[in-house]
This record gives sequence, C-alpha cells and structure tokens, in this order.
Amino acid sequence: MYIDGKDYRAIWLNENDTTVVMVIDQQRLPFFFGTKELRSVEDVWTAIREMTVRGAPLIGVAGAFGMYLATLEINTRTNVHEHLSNAARYLISCRPTAVNLSWAVNRVLDKLMKIPDPRLLSEAALKEATEISDNERENCRKIGEYGVKIIEKISTSRNGAPVNILTHCNAGWLACIDYGTATAPVYLAREKGIPVHVWVDETRPMNQGARLTSWELGKQGVPYTLIADNSGGHLMQKGMVDLVIVGCDRATAKGDVANKIGTYLKALAAFDNKVPFYAALPSSSFDLSIGDGLKEIVIEEREPEEVTSVLGFSDGEIRTVRISPEDAKAGNWGFDITPARLVTGFITEKGICRAKESDIRKMFSDKII
Amino acid sequence: MYIDGKDYRAIWLNENDTTVVMVIDQQRLPFFFGTKELRSVEDVWTAIREMTVRGAPLIGVAGAFGMYLATLEINTRTNVHEHLSNAARYLISCRPTAVNLSWAVNRVLDKLMKIPDPRLLSEAALKEATEISDNERENCRKIGEYGVKIIEKISTSRNGAPVNILTHCNAGWLACIDYGTATAPVYLAREKGIPVHVWVDETRPMNQGARLTSWELGKQGVPYTLIADNSGGHLMQKGMVDLVIVGCDRATAKGDVANKIGTYLKALAAFDNKVPFYAALPSSSFDLSIGDGLKEIVIEEREPEEVTSVLGFSDGEIRTVRISPEDAKAGNWGFDITPARLVTGFITEKGICRAKESDIRKMFSDKII
Repeated sequence: MYIDGKDYRAIWLNENDTTVVMVIDQQRLPFFFGTKELRSVEDVWTAIREMTVRGAPLIGVAGAFGMYLATLEINTRTNVHEHLSNAARYLISCRPTAVNLSWAVNRVLDKLMKIPDPRLLSEAALKEATEISDNERENCRKIGEYGVKIIEKISTSRNGAPVNILTHCNAGWLACIDYGTATAPVYLAREKGIPVHVWVDETRPMNQGARLTSWELGKQGVPYTLIADNSGGHLMQKGMVDLVIVGCDRATAKGDVANKIGTYLKALAAFDNKVPFYAALPSSSFDLSIGDGLKEIVIEEREPEEVTSVLGFSDGEIRTVRISPEDAKAGNWGFDITPARLVTGFITEKGICRAKESDIRKMFSDKII
Repeated sequence: MYIDGKDYRAIWLNENDTTVVMVIDQQRLPFFFGTKELRSVEDVWTAIREMTVRGAPLIGVAGAFGMYLATLEINTRTNVHEHLSNAARYLISCRPTAVNLSWAVNRVLDKLMKIPDPRLLSEAALKEATEISDNERENCRKIGEYGVKIIEKISTSRNGAPVNILTHCNAGWLACIDYGTATAPVYLAREKGIPVHVWVDETRPMNQGARLTSWELGKQGVPYTLIADNSGGHLMQKGMVDLVIVGCDRATAKGDVANKIGTYLKALAAFDNKVPFYAALPSSSFDLSIGDGLKEIVIEEREPEEVTSVLGFSDGEIRTVRISPEDAKAGNWGFDITPARLVTGFITEKGICRAKESDIRKMFSDKII
C-alpha cells in the first residue's frame, strides 16, 4: 500500500544487502514511521514476540524469512538437519495461537529437508519465503475481491450513504503483506468508489486498532471512527453497524474462529442485532485438524504489564504509562474463540463460505490435511 | 470504608468550615490520594463533569449538596425561586443518563420551594442532602446484605475455593457513599469470611475499573485481577466466572439496565454461558416512567479525547498519552442499555427481584411514580 506516495509491503528483502530482511516497525506506529532490520533467527523471534511484526499472515511470512536467515548461518561444521529443525522449532515456539507461523515455517523446512547440497539451501529458502509472501499478497487481493461483493450488496440499498463496517484489532495490510484480510474488502470498495466508513475497535491491551488500523485506514483515505472496545454493542443496537469483518488467527473445521481477545463479544452483539459477522482469512489460517476451537486451541497468555499499562505518546516521546495501582495483579489472554454458530461466513481467497463443516471441507477439499 | 486506617466516605461536609463540601478527588486515583473542596454550584458542576466525583449514587448526593451550596449564595436581592430553579436545572444538565442526579436535586428543590423564609433554606438543604447521603449509605449496606446471599449460595458448592465475580466500571464505595452497589455484596462476603475473587474490567475509555475498582478492592484486601474489557467473554467460556454484578445508572420499569458502556457485551456473554448477571442499585436508580430503555434513555456522548488518549502515570507524574494517530476521529458513548432479557435480577435495598415488570412494580409499589 502507499504511504505518503511510496509503495510498501509489511516485509521485504533489503535491496542492497540480501542477507537482511526489512519490516515496518509496528511498535512505534502511529507515532513514528520507521523500518527495522532483521539479520538473524533471533531477530525474527524477538520481532514477533515484541510485536514489531504481528498479525497471523505476516508472522507466517516473517517465520519463513526467519528460516531463510537460518540458512545463512550454516557453515561447513553445521549439522544442517539439526540446525534447521531447531530454528523451526524455536520460531514456532514464539506465538502458539496462529496456525500460519507453524504452517509457513514447516513449509520452508520441508522444502529444505529435501535438498542434499547445503550450498543450495539459502536460494531455495528465499524462493519459498518469497513465494509464500507473494501468495499471501495475492490471497489478500482475492479476499478483497470476494468480500467487496458483500459491501456492494449492502451499498445498493443505501442511496449513497456509506456502509458502516466494524472491525476489531488490525487485520489490515500491516498484519499481512498487502491489502490485509479484514480490510481488503474495504480497500477494494474504496478502489471501486463504494462509500464506506469503518468503526475501529481500539483493541486493548495492545491497541492494534487505535495504533495500526486507524493509521493505515487514514493513510489510504478511508473514513473511520475510533471507538473503545466497549462501544460496538451499543452501535449495533442503534443500527449504526451494517457489517462486522474481523481477521482470524486460526479457524477450525467446524468453523470456530480464534481471533484477538474480544472478538467473541462483538460476535455475540452482531448475532443479537442481526448484523452479518464475517471472518476474512487466507486458507492457510484454517486448521482442519481441529474441530472444537474452545477445547482444542491453545490461547496464548501474555505479560500482565500489557494490561496494567498503555503505550502512548506525550511530550514528543513514546511512553508507557501505568493505569492501575502499582501492585495490581492482571490477567492477559491474547485471543478468544468465537463459536461457528455466531459466524455468518468466511471470506477467503477461494470464495465465501458459511461457517459449516460441510461447506468448509468442500471449499478446502484440495488442501491436504 | 477504611483507607490506610482512616474511615472515609466519598463525600462529606468540611468539619471546620460548613460552607465547604469535601470529596475524594477520583481523577487522581490510584496515583495520588487526595481530597477536593467544593465551594459553589459551579464547583459541583465541574467536579461531576470532569469526573472528580462520578458514579450514579454519588453524583446524586453531590447534586443535593450542590443545592445546599446554592442556598449559601442567596442574599436579600436574590429572586429565591428563580435562583434555586436555575441552580437545579444547571446541576441536572451536567450528566443526562443517570436518574439519581435529577432525582436528588429535585428532592432538595421541592423541599426548599415549600419554605417561605429564605433564612431557613440552608439548614433545610443541608438536612435534606445529609439525609439523602445517609440513606444511600444505608441502602448500599442493605444491597450488600441481600447480595451476599447469592455469593454465599454459590460458595457452598465450592469447597473453600473463591467465588469468582466479574464487575464492570466502578460501582464501588467511591461511586456511592460507602460500601458501593456492585461491590457491597463483595465487601459483605469479605466481612463474613466467604472467599471471593473479583475480575475487574478496566473499563475504557475512562478506566474506572483499572483506576478505582482495583484501588478500592486492594485497599480493603479483596483479591482481584485486572483484565482488559475484551477478556470477560473468554473467561466465561472457560468457566472462570461464577457471577457478574454491575452497577446501574438507570433501570426501567421493564428491567432494562443503563450502565457504563460495555455492560451489554458482558451481559450477552453471561447469558451465552449461563452465568448469573445481576445489577445492584438503590431504588432511586429506577425510573418507572420509562419502559423501553433502548428507545427512551438518552445516552451521553462525551469528548473524543477520552478515547484517543489514556490517563496514566509515568516518571512520577500523571500524564495523558495519545494512543492513536494525531488526526484520528473518535466516538465516545458513556453508557449502553442491557435489555431485561439478559438480566438475571436486581439487587436493591428492598431485596432481590427478577428483571420483570411485574416483579419490579411489586417491589416498588410504595414508590410514588
């Protein structure tokens, strides 16, 4: 996407030094726009852990590039198999909920394991990581093309008034490579001249909505209004939301959706007010080995400090301010599970399907489980 | 309640100068504990507007004391009726959603309007305000006595494990005069030695949970865990919440609950997971003239800056940090309506009743509508 006239992706190879992977530093947005260099597997792990890069598709691609960086560490004394397996395990350990990370890392690992000549590993890893990245970008574009039809349909009954879309967290192009998942239909609507307005949940504790979705929508000229996570239900009761589109870190064969904590609450409100609720995701975010998301998906617990404090900007500096008593105990779950019964459908690069096991398996029948 | 060994209420008359009303400065909690002096009707208006004092019962009592301060402004040239009516209208205009403010202000006004001798007004106003304050305190104690029975019943099946109670915003003693509404059953459980643990919603945008409920529970030695507003649904799905108790700014004859924005989302999750959901409130928070809360209750809209920024503490100072792009547009609704169908019941000073019009009218049959 364009930022101040220049075309960016969320991750790319440094043009001048191909041993360096470049990412947009999302921890400093929207206060400062800058990039960060990743030069080792450890750099990738830390960038994912500290959310310099975040979002299911992007951490998958970052993991794949991490495997490329792992191949650069190989010398004549390296036990190649062990080194690559360790790197893969290490990268996957970073964040447990999204399926994309293990999927992408394992895809590169599988490819590399079949290559007997260690001198060919880097080129193969880079090719595979680039292919995954390009595919994710292409998938997001297709998600947009399918999803925009839903917006278009609502728009026809609006007499030119904007379609109001609520989204949670950041499943935008920053979370992906380009276009985004939940935002792709919005950007495509914008391209097509369909008037849209986005309600952006701030998404505590990390405020990906307030910091990232607001920023990227603003940069693309999409009208939006930032709201507290508490507000969505009220807006739906008042008929001010036409459609909810969220991203998805992992979807199960039955259609359960693991996504940013708080998604389930918005899905309940959408259901209660008959507002369509869609999850937008590339097929790589489906985990067909899992049926019941509530029982089977591991929900990441993160540091309590993310809850007891807030990252913000004052007096020219990015600051973390404490918002609670000094000795406050806090709990911090990164994701929740929205049961399939609350999900209207999935928007994927393969098309739109209902959150029913039969429909999902049919759509993904070409995927080897 | 006791703060570091000293007994406090949330509002009181200055012992040394009875023309001054004292309040705990809630805008500076939990970072600094201090009091603020209110010397005029304007001081009261500003204190309520800026949330130095907040919470439905407390703003009612503050409004009543505001009328007392209004009587102190009367001199021989004052048109008494006009002066008092204007003061009342001005005070009520401050926050539209809670019914307590207009109820308490009008109660004092009605009393004063019947007094022909202007020299007797101040004494009468002070007596009435003090009576309202004492009544609210007594009501909260009774709410606690009824509510603790619900906790006690759950506790019997727990084998000594704590009863997990989720609450939203601050309906604690800081919001009232003493004990609180939602917290009164918790404090009474504590007095009785029933083990409890409270999940405290941080309650964006103003973070009354993170700042105030955490602080007051901590000061009373009640175990609690602070959570993002997004977390409650997940906790309920995982069976980690036994009971939800929230406050209530206005309840309708049909049993709809106007309370802090986000309450509706928690009620949906409680209903979906069969967790009992109670609103605790004094009978003065019922507005029997209203049936459908969603259609009839005015929801206050507040400044967007409360959403685009967060109040916190760093480097020894209370600071407001911006959490969004500089040009972000934000929406800020103070309350939402939880429909009666999601409410298990009301805990009032008159007892516990279901959220059914017949039960409510029966319980309040002695109230003149």
